[in-house]
Amino acid sequence: MSSNRIADTDIASGASSRRHADNNSTYIHKVGVPPKPNLLKEIKFTLKETFFHDDPLRPFKDQTVSKKLMLGIQAIFPILDWGRRYKLSMFKGDLIAGLTIASLCIPQDIGYAKLAYMDPQFGLYSSFVPPLIYAAMGSSRDIAIGPVAVVSLLLGSLLQAEIDPKHKHEYERLAFTATFFAGLTQFVLGFFRLGFLIDFLSHAAIVGFMAGAAITISLQQLKGLLGIKTFTKKTDIVSVMRSVWTNAHHGWNWQTVLIGVTFLIFLLLAKHIGKKNKKLFWVPAIAPLISVIISTFCVYITRADKDGVAIVKHIERGINPPSLNEIHFTGNYMTKGFRIGVVAGMIALTEAVAIGRTFAAMKDYHLDGNKEMIALGTMNIVGSMTSCYVATGSFSRSAVNFMAGCNTAVSNIVMSIVVLLTLLVITPLFKYTPNAILASIIISAVVGLLDYDAMILIWKIDKFDFVACMGAFFGVVFGSVEIGLLIAVIISFAKILLQVTRPRTAVLGKIPRTTVYRNIQQYPEAKKVPGVVIVRVDSAIYFSNSNYIRERLLRLLSDEEEQLKENSLPRIQYLIVEMSPVTDIDTSGIHALEDLYKTLQKREIQLVLANPGQAVLDKLHASDFANTVGDDKIFLTVGDAITTLAPRLEP
Amino acid sequence: MSSNRIADTDIASGASSRRHADNNSTYIHKVGVPPKPNLLKEIKFTLKETFFHDDPLRPFKDQTVSKKLMLGIQAIFPILDWGRRYKLSMFKGDLIAGLTIASLCIPQDIGYAKLAYMDPQFGLYSSFVPPLIYAAMGSSRDIAIGPVAVVSLLLGSLLQAEIDPKHKHEYERLAFTATFFAGLTQFVLGFFRLGFLIDFLSHAAIVGFMAGAAITISLQQLKGLLGIKTFTKKTDIVSVMRSVWTNAHHGWNWQTVLIGVTFLIFLLLAKHIGKKNKKLFWVPAIAPLISVIISTFCVYITRADKDGVAIVKHIERGINPPSLNEIHFTGNYMTKGFRIGVVAGMIALTEAVAIGRTFAAMKDYHLDGNKEMIALGTMNIVGSMTSCYVATGSFSRSAVNFMAGCNTAVSNIVMSIVVLLTLLVITPLFKYTPNAILASIIISAVVGLLDYDAMILIWKIDKFDFVACMGAFFGVVFGSVEIGLLIAVIISFAKILLQVTRPRTAVLGKIPRTTVYRNIQQYPEAKKVPGVVIVRVDSAIYFSNSNYIRERLLRLLSDEEEQLKENSLPRIQYLIVEMSPVTDIDTSGIHALEDLYKTLQKREIQLVLANPGQAVLDKLHASDFANTVGDDKIFLTVGDAITTLAPRLEP
Repeated sequence: MSSNRIADTDIASGASSRRHADNNSTYIHKVGVPPKPNLLKEIKFTLKETFFHDDPLRPFKDQTVSKKLMLGIQAIFPILDWGRRYKLSMFKGDLIAGLTIASLCIPQDIGYAKLAYMDPQFGLYSSFVPPLIYAAMGSSRDIAIGPVAVVSLLLGSLLQAEIDPKHKHEYERLAFTATFFAGLTQFVLGFFRLGFLIDFLSHAAIVGFMAGAAITISLQQLKGLLGIKTFTKKTDIVSVMRSVWTNAHHGWNWQTVLIGVTFLIFLLLAKHIGKKNKKLFWVPAIAPLISVIISTFCVYITRADKDGVAIVKHIERGINPPSLNEIHFTGNYMTKGFRIGVVAGMIALTEAVAIGRTFAAMKDYHLDGNKEMIALGTMNIVGSMTSCYVATGSFSRSAVNFMAGCNTAVSNIVMSIVVLLTLLVITPLFKYTPNAILASIIISAVVGLLDYDAMILIWKIDKFDFVACMGAFFGVVFGSVEIGLLIAVIISFAKILLQVTRPRTAVLGKIPRTTVYRNIQQYPEAKKVPGVVIVRVDSAIYFSNSNYIRERLLRLLSDEEEQLKENSLPRIQYLIVEMSPVTDIDTSGIHALEDLYKTLQKREIQLVLANPGQAVLDKLHASDFANTVGDDKIFLTVGDAITTLAPRLEP
Repeated sequence: MSSNRIADTDIASGASSRRHADNNSTYIHKVGVPPKPNLLKEIKFTLKETFFHDDPLRPFKDQTVSKKLMLGIQAIFPILDWGRRYKLSMFKGDLIAGLTIASLCIPQDIGYAKLAYMDPQFGLYSSFVPPLIYAAMGSSRDIAIGPVAVVSLLLGSLLQAEIDPKHKHEYERLAFTATFFAGLTQFVLGFFRLGFLIDFLSHAAIVGFMAGAAITISLQQLKGLLGIKTFTKKTDIVSVMRSVWTNAHHGWNWQTVLIGVTFLIFLLLAKHIGKKNKKLFWVPAIAPLISVIISTFCVYITRADKDGVAIVKHIERGINPPSLNEIHFTGNYMTKGFRIGVVAGMIALTEAVAIGRTFAAMKDYHLDGNKEMIALGTMNIVGSMTSCYVATGSFSRSAVNFMAGCNTAVSNIVMSIVVLLTLLVITPLFKYTPNAILASIIISAVVGLLDYDAMILIWKIDKFDFVACMGAFFGVVFGSVEIGLLIAVIISFAKILLQVTRPRTAVLGKIPRTTVYRNIQQYPEAKKVPGVVIVRVDSAIYFSNSNYIRERLLRLLSDEEEQLKENSLPRIQYLIVEMSPVTDIDTSGIHALEDLYKTLQKREIQLVLANPGQAVLDKLHASDFANTVGDDKIFLTVGDAITTLAPRLEP
């Protein structure tokens, strides 16, 4: 039914426009001047769009008080909602997924703890408490929580700049302090709905940063992989390669190299298999645990540790000890912990939110970014009081979780229980695990962060993004994690600066056989209208760009006039500014238009505005500029403007 | 001729569209896919638009080397260009204007120097050298150069926080250092074409800042006007009023109050006359000098200084002494001078550029902002070496200059010569000038900075701008100049942040009797098309807003679906995204679109794009997303999309 009606009206409008055109007065629709919006309403709308654009309170509308209370508790603990609808049939998937990610996370945790210069048990601790909290409060169904490589590296790098990791206890205290403030940062961002701040790190910058971190982490593993004893504390490639080189003759341990390289090849092969055949995703997932078992057994049998093969030696047995009174809440170390925590918390957030969004889009469920941040924040705050360091969502484990068929956050609970059992029972078994195997596991885990395809795509799509990507990458590789991060943020901001100060403008022409006017660069067949210059301004006109826009329009006019002189065409009588993309204007913008109007008056050119939006029209009227220009110079479309003005053009 | 041709084509297109519609295949123009732009060209274009958008090198094109050299020298010293064309007939206007602004500037200079806690002669020095340099290098014809109230206040306030003005020599040294770095900042910004950075202080913020500064400056003058001896060093209204109040009983000097208030009334009256009758502009212009002469004479006759009327006492005679070796180029004071200089230089620049632009627009001549900055910077650098403090363009004196009929910067030279003569000959005559008269002159000068009308207009046009304006105003009045400035900058940035993170979107409907689709909020008569949701995104899609846009579109869709359910209308089958305002997209934006596409797929809704611009289309193709969506789902206009899709809609 609808299709016919539309076609009918189209024909009617075509016919009517023809009829009118014959009478030299085509139908011109008036530009809408809606009633002025209420001030309070306007402010409310802006606040809502800024902080509550996802309308988180919608389910609370029109409910009784007790129902509202229940919904409120459910909003904080989604497990109460989905838990009631949980079926046994779902558990099979969750169990398998949970066991798979547990087998993957245990060796990774031990390795990542080393990246953060912490004892191995802290990695396991961080895979026990945080996943439980997240399972109760988080709303992603696929994310796998725990320590991750990049955050561990970042945290380690920032912490050891403050305290030598040799002072174990003080170092751990600062780590818990940083974790506490990381959690607090995440919680505050979520609670005050400032989650959009993490969007300021662009995708491209993250890709570069992650790739750089992968290289840096892998380079750090050369210590374990080659069995080097004296290794640089710096993370840049130059220092690390110098360390490796100077130790080449008598610093390398051949047994270590043999174990490390063999299993690295095995792990990479497993990864390759998993990539080729999606059904064999479990091969790379359990390969690390198998490597650990085999290599530990080998070292135990051969007692290779006596030949200089470094081993884990000791992992504290038992569950997380409380650490609330270890956190610095005052003094110098609080400030340091706060600074480190904010940075680590933001990066952890970026990773977790990106993962959450990706899987939510794949399974089409809604994820409230700000609520996620509250969950992650709470999880890290509680973590900091139970001897955990910053945990977040892991890219690699979440992917495994997803492929293993997890249905809910129950898979995290399963993983958490397995880690608990490990802590209680089998930690002594890791005594003879060679460090080299942990290095191999970490390298094979972070290889996935080096996303060539994404980089190539970024190069293809947007050169500026590629600069940001490479800036972050080289900053991390040749400088340090912090420098890379700083470069990424600066380039991202430079781009925003460029966007708000230098909006584009386009000269429009008429597309043959239509009444549509388009950019003549994009549509070379579009024809300019003699005596008229039509320009589209592609941004809101604000103080940051108003002067540029005014100067740009005048320059376009001068360019046109020069061309006209060369071809001795009629002089320009109208400047039509197509304002469709101009969504808003402020006082500086109005002033720029007034200045433009004055200059055009001197040159005897009429200023014409096409399709100003609601907000712009309001302000044009409020400032009386609409009257200065004249209501008869404001049109619904460029086509209308041309049709009306054409008869008035001097020959 | 042109008019007919256009009308013809319009009719033709109307007719043809009708004919096609009859055959149920209206003419659909293909979306333009232009050849991929060359990468180097693209980068060159971006750089050019960012830094050289005003095409400053245009006159150099196609010229011989010697001609280029001459043009280059002329570009640096525009006086060589306009000087050759200078006619005696122009001199009359310049002479009168020069004498008028000289009579205005001499008493102002002495007062402004006091605002900066400097000796009076430094104000006069700053009206001698800088105007000469500017006349040679500047391109504004109307600006009047010299010390100004706001910059003097700002400089004094920043300097005295570092050194007590009682340590005259050290204080002056820091002042010259700050002036040097202010000049350097201005020069560097201009030379590296970073002039757009000053646009980040919005018009509204400047209006508020200036008004606050006017209040603060006036309050400071209460010291001189009431003859108070012990006065607070703070500038906020609370401290000042407390100072005034505690001195009310025995701290005020009635003779001083009498002189001050009498002449203040006289000056304000003169100002009023000048405002009512534009031809009497010279009345307020010479009133200050007349007040000085009369009051000095009165004090000299009555020896009122013996009754406690504070007088100027001594102004150093002679021209500017050199001060190059007074500038700190190393050490702690250099850092301080640098910091103060950057702030003072930016504010001075903002004022000068605003004045230059205003008058250039009124007389329709071109002003290169960056070249102006180089001129202003050079002028302050030279000034700092000849005992001047920061000079810039004065709002009030420039207006007088303009109204007195100046033609070129020669009026500045005339003023400069008069100041020179004053310094050489008549400074001793100022001995008995009462300080109260200087206070009156300053108050009557800064009253003009309190621009109520502008504030009311800002309130009417843009509420957010008004917040910025009031923030700056109250910050200056109740805090300090620096706090006001900081608030202004922060609010300005918050606005930019809002702009780039929360772009607007609008649901479009078909305007009756046309094929035009517009915002249904602005045009309530616009009708939605059943089964289709048409949304316009009003911004480039970048990392800073891509997630918001995706979520916003999905929410709009949910809202629509809810409404449909209530009214049991057909389900939504197409989401048409009108992309005219989307001038650009980056990799994050593409990812957001991909996620959106996936989600829509799950819901069996087709994604359709209307009128993507050149840059966007390039990137859609580069990322292969154009193929994912399908070329048949990308249209030139929303109208085309509807016409094509309508027959395919399920009933």
